Amino acid sequence: MAQQIPYKIYLSEDEMPKAWYNVRADMKNKPAPLLNPGTLEPMQFDDLRPVFCDELIRQELDNDTAYFEIPEEIRAFYRMYRPSPLVRAYCLEEKLQTPAKIYYKFEGNNTSGSHKLNSAIAQAYYAKQQGLKGLTTETGAGQWGTALSMACAYLGLDLKVFMVKVSYEQKPFRREVMRTYGANVTPSPSNTTNVGRKILEEFPGTTGSLGCAISEAVETAVSTPGYRYVLGSVLNQVLLHQSVIGLEAKAALDKYGIKPDVIIGCAGGGSNLGGLIAPFMGEKLRGEADYEIIAVEPASCPSFTRGRYAYDFCDTGMVCPLAKMYTLGSSFIPSANHAGGLRYHGMSSILSQLYHDGYMTARAVEQTSVFEAAELFARTEGTLPAPESSHAIRAAIDEALKCKQTGEEKTILFGLTGTGYFDLKAYEQYNDGTMTDVIPTDEDLEKGFAGLPKVDK
Amino acid sequence: MAQQIPYKIYLSEDEMPKAWYNVRADMKNKPAPLLNPGTLEPMQFDDLRPVFCDELIRQELDNDTAYFEIPEEIRAFYRMYRPSPLVRAYCLEEKLQTPAKIYYKFEGNNTSGSHKLNSAIAQAYYAKQQGLKGLTTETGAGQWGTALSMACAYLGLDLKVFMVKVSYEQKPFRREVMRTYGANVTPSPSNTTNVGRKILEEFPGTTGSLGCAISEAVETAVSTPGYRYVLGSVLNQVLLHQSVIGLEAKAALDKYGIKPDVIIGCAGGGSNLGGLIAPFMGEKLRGEADYEIIAVEPASCPSFTRGRYAYDFCDTGMVCPLAKMYTLGSSFIPSANHAGGLRYHGMSSILSQLYHDGYMTARAVEQTSVFEAAELFARTEGTLPAPESSHAIRAAIDEALKCKQTGEEKTILFGLTGTGYFDLKAYEQYNDGTMTDVIPTDEDLEKGFAGLPKVDK
Repeated sequence: MAQQIPYKIYLSEDEMPKAWYNVRADMKNKPAPLLNPGTLEPMQFDDLRPVFCDELIRQELDNDTAYFEIPEEIRAFYRMYRPSPLVRAYCLEEKLQTPAKIYYKFEGNNTSGSHKLNSAIAQAYYAKQQGLKGLTTETGAGQWGTALSMACAYLGLDLKVFMVKVSYEQKPFRREVMRTYGANVTPSPSNTTNVGRKILEEFPGTTGSLGCAISEAVETAVSTPGYRYVLGSVLNQVLLHQSVIGLEAKAALDKYGIKPDVIIGCAGGGSNLGGLIAPFMGEKLRGEADYEIIAVEPASCPSFTRGRYAYDFCDTGMVCPLAKMYTLGSSFIPSANHAGGLRYHGMSSILSQLYHDGYMTARAVEQTSVFEAAELFARTEGTLPAPESSHAIRAAIDEALKCKQTGEEKTILFGLTGTGYFDLKAYEQYNDGTMTDVIPTDEDLEKGFAGLPKVDK
Repeated sequence: MAQQIPYKIYLSEDEMPKAWYNVRADMKNKPAPLLNPGTLEPMQFDDLRPVFCDELIRQELDNDTAYFEIPEEIRAFYRMYRPSPLVRAYCLEEKLQTPAKIYYKFEGNNTSGSHKLNSAIAQAYYAKQQGLKGLTTETGAGQWGTALSMACAYLGLDLKVFMVKVSYEQKPFRREVMRTYGANVTPSPSNTTNVGRKILEEFPGTTGSLGCAISEAVETAVSTPGYRYVLGSVLNQVLLHQSVIGLEAKAALDKYGIKPDVIIGCAGGGSNLGGLIAPFMGEKLRGEADYEIIAVEPASCPSFTRGRYAYDFCDTGMVCPLAKMYTLGSSFIPSANHAGGLRYHGMSSILSQLYHDGYMTARAVEQTSVFEAAELFARTEGTLPAPESSHAIRAAIDEALKCKQTGEEKTILFGLTGTGYFDLKAYEQYNDGTMTDVIPTDEDLEKGFAGLPKVDK
């Protein structure tokens, strides 16, 4: 008789991963290197030192080492909110009347409300190790800023967060969480930086943008002794840290002898998806197992499904290195009716290469159908999901309904990256029936592509 | 060598309680019965049937049965978010440099954000069993309404929530969570009830009160076929359901051979405190063990520490039965600067009797010192606590600091009832330094006591 699978599989603290897994080590085609925007030459260790801390640069540039040991201090922090549960979605299966078996790895049971904390504590730890005084970063809606505030409070590091002014004013709750954890939160653009003052002079009434906030955070890091800049997604180091999600999920499944057929994650910059799929992708790359891996992105910001695979600026301010990725162009901004995250114009270089090489597929889903899935999930499984995570829920439900038609008993694993407690304005639109879908036209996309830098690589 | 205690002790799903524990069975002095406000005679089963569903009335009136089996359907729902972790607060101990060992039972890892869900699912289940169509309730800030929305969504029951108008308008997030779970949320006073229309006529600009919302919810339940009214605290049945908190906590401690010396809970109506202490109090009542049990209440609403032990109205509208309890009088309203919950004028009859008989102590703490404790806890243990829970944190920290002075290695257990994600207005006040303490004067309290009904029991 088959062993009864509990609703939630928790690893013991002993069973938690002791090393992060670097999927690049198993990639035949390595992700393309970051390029210096001036020389178009690959960025080297020394080029990156003014901005990032040393150990993180090593992790960023290392395409060969398969495992990086997780320092005990980071593992101690992980034990405060990890292992995260791997949940069998019995109630959702019952509701859908599907023969599919659905599992999700839930990363929302911490105050940052998402998986972002996994990399925040790692980045803060290495900064502390290097003897730095503080960090700077930017945040839009505030998930990343919250996670980093928690990590810096724990380690006693200073933190300056540049928060897009419109969010600072209209979404005061995330701001107050960050302040409670001791972060210095500045609405961007601000008069504390050259770039901020310049923008304020030119556009006195501006409500800010992520691109501007990045520029202010980088300027502050570079010009303040003992400070460095950190980023919560897209980078190779972030995917490395986030591999803890996939390693835990795989260990929990292995305990019960379960092998997923389909693995689904939402994709913005790629940090969650890259982390969830890492060990499974490793097996696939090494030819040890096969998995169907699906990236799910919003139809309003479709970098995988309608983007170009090309070198592009990582930020709208064009101050950062160039990265080769699936991109909509750094000037692309999703329609104003787009709710929640997943609004980044590009995609992790690692995932871009894997997608390009055919190791995973991608699909775009529309906003109202995402919230429909979110509502169904909340009512059956209890947890109110983040809009980002609900992209993965949508695809998981669609796959489960396919199984219902074909009778296949597929095992589906998806990433539930976080909770929607700070996204209730979007839920209100959905509840009121005023939410709409806006999909960029080909002309919209062409405008974004027109701004791609000319790089012959 | 002592066994290493993990950061979080999770029971397996097999180890979860299969029955609730009714502490009344072990009380020599039973809690005083509810009285009919007209006749002043104890309320009987039939008196309560128009308002509550049958099985819940049986639980309410049963002072003798020690264990009530938890139906499998409720246990299945519990498995979606329970067992909740029992956490060893290693980081807080380290920060305080105390020899005390601190544990907390964390009930906030679910979308309702608190322990309220434990009773919400039970009450909804028995309503469904009785073949009812729907439920009504009132909610202030929205924790209870959210929990009940989740339970009703899961079971397919209709739910009408009367939400105090000022909260409906100024705290739209909880409202939207409830709507996402399919609840019908009406700002109170409304023109859907006689009592609401009457109040709107008399006070056209009123922003409502909990007392008025209760009256509208009861009227709707009594006048709508197939509906009953439910309440989230104070009642005996609620404390019974909440015993799952204490039973799980005790089972987790027993696994590691740990016996707490001090048990601390915050006290509003008493649902969390009564649930947390239940099995420990049972041992104490039976003379099998001794524990120091401390109720912590806000200095701005001090029912235990400055209230009268007397029969009083449960609601400000004076439509409900009379209950004997420590009370500030049903007309008492905490100062407007009081943040968070714990604003009920009275206290569970069970806890009132136990306190009266000397089985537990109580202390009142001031608001700014509560938020100071909340901030320290958030920064060291990660989780942003609810203001309510932070009353218990304050007392736990104070006890741990006493141990630091005396060198005693006491084991402290407290209840972390929930998260503060919907309380960020209060945190903002604290962060801005604009939070104040207002403690009622003796004259303020005398006004409340003057309204107590004349009951010679």
